[in-house]
Amino acid sequence: MDEAARIALIARILAGPARGVELGIGDDAAVLLAPPGVGRLIWTIDEQVEGVHFRRDFASWRDVGWRSFQAAASDVAAMGARPWCALCALVLPDTVDDAALEEITLGQRDAALAVGAPIVGGNLSRGTGFSIATTLLGVCERAVGRSGAKVGDGLWMAGHVGLAACGLRALTTGRGAAAAALPALAAWRRPEALVSSGLAMAESARAAIDVSDGLARDVGHLAQASGVQAVLDPSALLADAALVAAARAIGVDPLDLALYGGEDYALVAAGPAPIAGFRRIGDIREGAGLVLATEEGDIPLLVRGFDHFSR
Amino acid sequence: MDEAARIALIARILAGPARGVELGIGDDAAVLLAPPGVGRLIWTIDEQVEGVHFRRDFASWRDVGWRSFQAAASDVAAMGARPWCALCALVLPDTVDDAALEEITLGQRDAALAVGAPIVGGNLSRGTGFSIATTLLGVCERAVGRSGAKVGDGLWMAGHVGLAACGLRALTTGRGAAAAALPALAAWRRPEALVSSGLAMAESARAAIDVSDGLARDVGHLAQASGVQAVLDPSALLADAALVAAARAIGVDPLDLALYGGEDYALVAAGPAPIAGFRRIGDIREGAGLVLATEEGDIPLLVRGFDHFSR
Repeated sequence: MDEAARIALIARILAGPARGVELGIGDDAAVLLAPPGVGRLIWTIDEQVEGVHFRRDFASWRDVGWRSFQAAASDVAAMGARPWCALCALVLPDTVDDAALEEITLGQRDAALAVGAPIVGGNLSRGTGFSIATTLLGVCERAVGRSGAKVGDGLWMAGHVGLAACGLRALTTGRGAAAAALPALAAWRRPEALVSSGLAMAESARAAIDVSDGLARDVGHLAQASGVQAVLDPSALLADAALVAAARAIGVDPLDLALYGGEDYALVAAGPAPIAGFRRIGDIREGAGLVLATEEGDIPLLVRGFDHFSR
Repeated sequence: MDEAARIALIARILAGPARGVELGIGDDAAVLLAPPGVGRLIWTIDEQVEGVHFRRDFASWRDVGWRSFQAAASDVAAMGARPWCALCALVLPDTVDDAALEEITLGQRDAALAVGAPIVGGNLSRGTGFSIATTLLGVCERAVGRSGAKVGDGLWMAGHVGLAACGLRALTTGRGAAAAALPALAAWRRPEALVSSGLAMAESARAAIDVSDGLARDVGHLAQASGVQAVLDPSALLADAALVAAARAIGVDPLDLALYGGEDYALVAAGPAPIAGFRRIGDIREGAGLVLATEEGDIPLLVRGFDHFSR
């Protein structure tokens, strides 16, 4: 199909109600009417690249569309905002045929419905490398950034960490067939932005981040931005039965996965009070950096994790 | 440099005042306060891909950054809106080193300043194909879409058509050294989104589009969306002295360039009254499609131009 036909296909799949959207797919730009009474707009862009964020032999085209959308939505959730609507820009090599484009769009549509943020426009380009850029707008009264954590706050987490990385490891090592690994495969293929948890967190949290590049790296960023030390409790991280079972099934250390595995899109918040749907995984102290509080004492952790440009 | 250092470099270059932006580069998402009294938000995403939208031997890194930003800003201008702020997502292969990234960012920064829309966030990823995705928000009271042209309207144009394509042709044929080709080279390397023209147009225009893929294709889209026929006057298109001189210097037909050459980002509007800064290039009639009104009569034009997926 040519460009116009491809856009028409996408528009058919994505058609549906969109609150506050006066003009959607098919013009130079989308036209929006901000919902009345909205305090703040939250705006993010994320891009998923073949060979970096996904491998085609590990995920269906529909998974690829789903994952790309949820990764962007997670940034909005991490600010304590409600996703509103989205635009998507695809770079499509010849290997992505019309049937694949339809599946990708269906995956995006499913995720957009799950998150409650319709796709109202975008861009198509050919190219040699396949990528999906997703930009989302969200709305909130009060945005929760990374820099507000205070000494004495608890560190609270919703969702899993390490499970998606365990799923990817199961795929790369060919051990994905183990029953205990199935939740890990699903975590990697079908991550979910924790929108409701983000909204719950916004009531009391002083700082928050989503775990896309690994807990150590992302909580390290929160601590650095807030000028505090973050303390992680390993027993709380290992209280995740699904993670421990999946890690055992493929023979890797669950704590290593929990600290350094990315792409689960868990939410971590710092705040003075428990948050519905979150469990405590540590504390905020005076100091800097990140430590693991073990029975033998505190172990400083390197703020490492996924880095696009480190060698 | 690693990812954090690259983001810090970009943040330093892009630092500056940004109206209505509470939180910019460095968090999960940007936080915006819509300017008070704003009617509508205009939202677009555009992506420029190496080997498709630019060749590195034809443009400096700074040109590449500039062009990518202006292409997105032109979509906002074409809706009659004022650009507000932007996010940029870059996919960077190893061939884009730190010095190149700095130049690209400077080009984006220059364009953002020229357009009046600061870059307040983004995303970096490695990948094999180099691309820049730019998403812009704009504001306006009344958005000018593609579908409102009425029979009897004039067709009005601001800016050049064909000049950028002439510049690209000069580069690909090695004839770029001719003095008459210099404005064409500049048009291709340094296009400018016609923001002021777009704002002027919004007063009276009933439909508008920016010419990114060629006049025939883009005006054809406007006619189709509006359910009318667009008539182009070739003598008006050939009244562009810079185009005619450049086309002659490299030995190509200026009318062919004007009709089918893209990437100038001229604005074409349909409306009942002359618009400051626009010249008349045709009319809107009852019917469908696009015709060229010559002395020998009307010649139907194929709505062709740049298509990413046609063979």
